[in-house]
Amino acid sequence: MKLVRFESDGQPVIGVLSGDGIVRIRDLLPEFQEMRQLAAAGPEALERLADKLASARPTVSLESARLLAPMERPRNFLAIGMNYRKHAEEGVRLGVIPPKFQVWFNKATSSISGPFDDIDPGVTRQLDYEVELGVAIGQTARYVSTEEAPAHVFGYFVGNDVSARDWQLHASTWTVGKSFETHGPIGPWIVTPDEIGDPHKLELRTYVNGELRQRANSEQLIYSIWEQIEYVSTAFALEPGDLILTGTPEGVGHAMIPQQHLKVGDVVRCEIEKIGAIENKVVASKARRFPVLEEDRIARTLAAAEA
Amino acid sequence: MKLVRFESDGQPVIGVLSGDGIVRIRDLLPEFQEMRQLAAAGPEALERLADKLASARPTVSLESARLLAPMERPRNFLAIGMNYRKHAEEGVRLGVIPPKFQVWFNKATSSISGPFDDIDPGVTRQLDYEVELGVAIGQTARYVSTEEAPAHVFGYFVGNDVSARDWQLHASTWTVGKSFETHGPIGPWIVTPDEIGDPHKLELRTYVNGELRQRANSEQLIYSIWEQIEYVSTAFALEPGDLILTGTPEGVGHAMIPQQHLKVGDVVRCEIEKIGAIENKVVASKARRFPVLEEDRIARTLAAAEA
Repeated sequence: MKLVRFESDGQPVIGVLSGDGIVRIRDLLPEFQEMRQLAAAGPEALERLADKLASARPTVSLESARLLAPMERPRNFLAIGMNYRKHAEEGVRLGVIPPKFQVWFNKATSSISGPFDDIDPGVTRQLDYEVELGVAIGQTARYVSTEEAPAHVFGYFVGNDVSARDWQLHASTWTVGKSFETHGPIGPWIVTPDEIGDPHKLELRTYVNGELRQRANSEQLIYSIWEQIEYVSTAFALEPGDLILTGTPEGVGHAMIPQQHLKVGDVVRCEIEKIGAIENKVVASKARRFPVLEEDRIARTLAAAEA
Repeated sequence: MKLVRFESDGQPVIGVLSGDGIVRIRDLLPEFQEMRQLAAAGPEALERLADKLASARPTVSLESARLLAPMERPRNFLAIGMNYRKHAEEGVRLGVIPPKFQVWFNKATSSISGPFDDIDPGVTRQLDYEVELGVAIGQTARYVSTEEAPAHVFGYFVGNDVSARDWQLHASTWTVGKSFETHGPIGPWIVTPDEIGDPHKLELRTYVNGELRQRANSEQLIYSIWEQIEYVSTAFALEPGDLILTGTPEGVGHAMIPQQHLKVGDVVRCEIEKIGAIENKVVASKARRFPVLEEDRIARTLAAAEA
């Protein structure tokens, strides 16, 4: 099934695709108002939904619906870095030291936006894209092994880990430059695992204004999705509705020679096999104010103390 | 005012200190059920609360109340690293490269715990403490200048940025090792700005089993609280109830020679002038399972491709 959130009379509603239309989930299983509840309910609830869907008729046209991010704002929006070999090589070339273990960072959950929403560059002068296979967590995962991990996946989606490279590289922790508002478009829907089969055999592609920039297959992941869930859940719980981005392949604009950052007016399309595509245009908001930043204060503070 | 959350019949309740007792806020201003609502309501609501409090009598004894983290689970729980000179020196000695700008990282909000709750080491073998002056955000801060920043502070609290050093240093992004459950005890209450005056003149101390380990003054911050709010809010919004930890001074166990990590049974007490103290005992949960971790897969993947 393909699970969507869309706007109806200004309110978010959850639905499921049926042909070229959407069936409201409340018309099938009235107890579910939010996608997160469905994620928490486990596979039995999805089976009931599929049963009901078989005899249902869509009441909303997909074409006319305004799709929202397919999950309500989660507790955790995590992403792993350097998880495709050729992209890791790009990172090393740009000065990143290969980590000893999985390199996880956080995107503020306020960065999440809809599959066709605009991307606001905000104050970055180095806006970049990263197509990623997204995983939505189902039932809580804590101390989960790789064998147990698949049972904790609610579904898969397309994510663009939009990155403000200048701000990302202000510090090795990356968090702030990964967390700009609108820099986490996801969707267009969450596809349940039964439709995906092995998630490590999906082609990913990014186009900028129609030009192919990234193309790879998730079989090239350095750490598999199961290993990712095992690692994080060994440290803390992944909760229903939490979102994980599983890594981007080579071809980001910041690593091109010469560098090609996104400009106002550019359209970025990220596609993943068996899931679909999201497409976002770069539109600068009028609210942005560029700050004056003072470089190297910490290093100078240390040097002054030594002198 | 000192604003608390405490447990009453298994439910969280917000209150305000009065002498050695607590007044329930719902008895003064019934429209506020959660601390976050009060944070969002701005200074006028705090003035009304103070007016009502002047003629109120406490109905709950502070001594017998079980205090909770003084804020409900926020959207963002952020912390800045290397923000006291001597602690930055400790970091450099341990191999951290001084960042060019402010170094922010994220603690999963599930790490937040009460001011006297136990700390579960989980799977770390290098458990450490970090006393930090905590800031709770009041009204939304976006593109806020240093001059405007104080108006966006709801109040101050004591935080212990408990750190799993081995997991923190798995990758330069730190997130996972900073996010273990129970590794974010905060409290004992949120103190409103009028009682603090200049937050850059507060002494901070940490004791482990009664032994003084950290002692410094917030006047030594490299980036002031106002600069921190300006920087983050330039990238994305800080929302009502968001929590910021403003940096730890020197004296962490991981930088001692020889290193002194926390052990099961240890009691850590973090104090800040004009606020109070939190105290947490290290107690290992039975659920923990130590994983077998494979080191340097990314570097080996890169080397194999080159060969």
